[in-house]
Amino acid sequence: MDDPLVIADREYSSRLITGTGGASNLAVLERALVASGTELTTVSIRRVDVEGGTGVLDLLKRLGIDPLPNTAGCRTAAEAVLTARLAREALGTDWVKLEVVADDRTLLPDPVELLEAARTLVADGFTVLPYTNDDPVLALRLEEAGCAAVMPLGSPIGTGLGIRNPHNIELIVARAGVPVVLDAGIGTASDAALAMELGCAAVLLATSVTRAADPEKMAAAMRHAVAGGRLARAAGRVPQRFWAQASSPPR
Amino acid sequence: MDDPLVIADREYSSRLITGTGGASNLAVLERALVASGTELTTVSIRRVDVEGGTGVLDLLKRLGIDPLPNTAGCRTAAEAVLTARLAREALGTDWVKLEVVADDRTLLPDPVELLEAARTLVADGFTVLPYTNDDPVLALRLEEAGCAAVMPLGSPIGTGLGIRNPHNIELIVARAGVPVVLDAGIGTASDAALAMELGCAAVLLATSVTRAADPEKMAAAMRHAVAGGRLARAAGRVPQRFWAQASSPPR
Amino acid sequence: MDDPLVIADREYSSRLITGTGGASNLAVLERALVASGTELTTVSIRRVDVEGGTGVLDLLKRLGIDPLPNTAGCRTAAEAVLTARLAREALGTDWVKLEVVADDRTLLPDPVELLEAARTLVADGFTVLPYTNDDPVLALRLEEAGCAAVMPLGSPIGTGLGIRNPHNIELIVARAGVPVVLDAGIGTASDAALAMELGCAAVLLATSVTRAADPEKMAAAMRHAVAGGRLARAAGRVPQRFWAQASSPPR
Amino acid sequence: MDDPLVIADREYSSRLITGTGGASNLAVLERALVASGTELTTVSIRRVDVEGGTGVLDLLKRLGIDPLPNTAGCRTAAEAVLTARLAREALGTDWVKLEVVADDRTLLPDPVELLEAARTLVADGFTVLPYTNDDPVLALRLEEAGCAAVMPLGSPIGTGLGIRNPHNIELIVARAGVPVVLDAGIGTASDAALAMELGCAAVLLATSVTRAADPEKMAAAMRHAVAGGRLARAAGRVPQRFWAQASSPPR
Repeated sequence: MDDPLVIADREYSSRLITGTGGASNLAVLERALVASGTELTTVSIRRVDVEGGTGVLDLLKRLGIDPLPNTAGCRTAAEAVLTARLAREALGTDWVKLEVVADDRTLLPDPVELLEAARTLVADGFTVLPYTNDDPVLALRLEEAGCAAVMPLGSPIGTGLGIRNPHNIELIVARAGVPVVLDAGIGTASDAALAMELGCAAVLLATSVTRAADPEKMAAAMRHAVAGGRLARAAGRVPQRFWAQASSPPR
Repeated sequence: MDDPLVIADREYSSRLITGTGGASNLAVLERALVASGTELTTVSIRRVDVEGGTGVLDLLKRLGIDPLPNTAGCRTAAEAVLTARLAREALGTDWVKLEVVADDRTLLPDPVELLEAARTLVADGFTVLPYTNDDPVLALRLEEAGCAAVMPLGSPIGTGLGIRNPHNIELIVARAGVPVVLDAGIGTASDAALAMELGCAAVLLATSVTRAADPEKMAAAMRHAVAGGRLARAAGRVPQRFWAQASSPPR
Repeated sequence: MDDPLVIADREYSSRLITGTGGASNLAVLERALVASGTELTTVSIRRVDVEGGTGVLDLLKRLGIDPLPNTAGCRTAAEAVLTARLAREALGTDWVKLEVVADDRTLLPDPVELLEAARTLVADGFTVLPYTNDDPVLALRLEEAGCAAVMPLGSPIGTGLGIRNPHNIELIVARAGVPVVLDAGIGTASDAALAMELGCAAVLLATSVTRAADPEKMAAAMRHAVAGGRLARAAGRVPQRFWAQASSPPR
Repeated sequence: MDDPLVIADREYSSRLITGTGGASNLAVLERALVASGTELTTVSIRRVDVEGGTGVLDLLKRLGIDPLPNTAGCRTAAEAVLTARLAREALGTDWVKLEVVADDRTLLPDPVELLEAARTLVADGFTVLPYTNDDPVLALRLEEAGCAAVMPLGSPIGTGLGIRNPHNIELIVARAGVPVVLDAGIGTASDAALAMELGCAAVLLATSVTRAADPEKMAAAMRHAVAGGRLARAAGRVPQRFWAQASSPPR
């Protein structure tokens, strides 16, 4: 199982993408990032501004983790495109996790604005990784628009409700030509394992680790879960049966 | 997370207990056992007879894995007690995985016979690890009878249906004074992770590994899943919410 | 769908069996009973004592509803047998809902005591309807003991968790030669409908109606749900599919 | 529970909306429609053409059921708008069930085309009832566009997978100012009851009835289920508990 995660022109050996939001301080974040084994981590451009510093970026650099700027908090395509361009200048990367959310209560993506922003950014040379809902049609449209991956949610951001609709994730995986990354809703390790078993190429999570009672330990849990789920998918699980079956033939 | 699994007077660093049934041959079994990291593995005394050899036992010995004789196929307390005693003589261990099943179609335990056999074997000096259904009352009764652990099923043997009733497993864990081992029904890695998240001390599985398309790979998957689930339980997961919550405060 | 529910030598046109516990007063209870359409209702012999009156029994008589005395609160076979005999004298019926619970926190049946009580009462001429857990083996044992029906729980009494393990209910139904009555755990109408779809012959519930905000309305809901679930089972549902299927062929 | 279903300027006493697709012949369809108690039924304009007759429309007229033309099979906003206009002329109604699906394998709506078609048809004076996915954002957008109801799916058309994501339906209901109609995916009665318990104002289904082994019986089942689910929602269900609670206080 040494096949790397390939997105656009990059390869990663880790299939766990993390976020930095929600960490109580940089020391805690550092331990969690190290324990997770991640090689790619989203950062909010806006938060970098707000915090008036580059502590998170410096940390990622020191740890050798690629930063993935996101457009968290953007409500329209125009706003997201602008934010992505600022991030490109500030961070020197044309990769972007594209978020265009409709409202604060659900933080769900606005499908129309998201698709428009994706098209614009792809045309502008970005490597676009869109955070999307679990609609198999929108996932296809984003891929057709040139996105380098599609990142459907398991459930709304920060709910910890896990994967509410595994059927939709399976439908997305069945037709995707780019990596499918499960993004948002992960609450615990078994959720992450399930994402990989459903055929996702990677898992992206933030607060399930940063807001756990022990972030470092949960980060290690998620690392194992993603590895385990990936192996299980590749191993070919046994079928489900209604009646029992003895593990060895009766005497 | 280096705390060992303690059952009776033994300590194990692995929390994955495996079975040998269902493997296509000894070479495949060996690779799976090694990949699983297991230190305790059930063997059917009856199968040892049938196969007219001691290949499995020799393998376990060579790998430094403790054998755990089981009474698979027994239908009555008397039959199970007799089988356990034969195993004690043959293998030189007073540990036994106690199985007393009611019929071939469900392979579910007979609660009355199981409890009677447990009492008899405990009185006879055995360290008894009973395979039981997920009834929280029967689990308590088995503990009261002196069993060293209780091993409720997730779903019937060989079905791969996972943990059908997490609520019952939680009820068992909430009141148990001995280790709870999830035994039977595991189909894939996320099932094993969930078992640990529910508070189980270990997972016992056989055919989900031995009958997977790639047993070695699935064994590695299960090893990760058990480790990940254990860590996640200890890490203190985030609560579930109805509405979303941003990972970082809005600007 | 006019086939009656047949238990022992009686026939009922309603498949909803209710309980009286939890009602705030007799007037509320009466409206709920009428709305439910029930023809058979459990009464706690002990509660009749406590209340120092026969209000509930008089109500049932007036409404033409058969009383089904239960042994709620009994912890041992001996206690349950005694209670059943007292009920037979007091109410002049040899029907009994047999409950032998292990503890107050779960109110789950004690399988060994339950089975012993069932055998004793059957031998004593009772028509025994045992409240049992969802263990398919215990259900068979109770039937073999001569019980007139088996009444597995969906989830523990008063939890409103619905049917936690539909697979077990299906296993019970698949092998039962007597009516299977889903007893305990029902929270809302869809739970009752599901019970019937799984093949149960009837549903028994109490507090989901008596403790609902509007008991009369919930009683009417349950009446519809049981009827609907029964019809759906008989109607032969469509299979589940992974991909979509148009309701009419494309042009 | 005599409050009617109000959509735009019409009132219906039945909350079960049916479809005609999938019926083996008109006689079977008639019996199912009568048993369902429906007062509003979708008809495919395209199918009417194909069949070279008006049998279905005549049947609806005779039964006093309002026809609701749909745009089944349309792939673009333009195509759907054209079809709706043809239907308006042919049937003399400005009500339309708006379907704009993205592909044949999932029959899922195309969110962008759907929203555009909805806007156009509302501006053109139609009463628009859009079939949508279960995305809470798209549901809001459709309502903002002036749709008279929103009709999210439970699962893809014809799958019989029921309501895959109750959380999304709850989110839609929590914010909707127009009736929410659960449309597509219903397999059996308990699915329909659940839809109403989640707060839907009505249920729309077709093949779960027309392709059941006994359509008339399943239609009756659905009628009960919708009524039961509606009552249960209004009755205020009991809360869910982890531990048991006796229906009456212990003696």
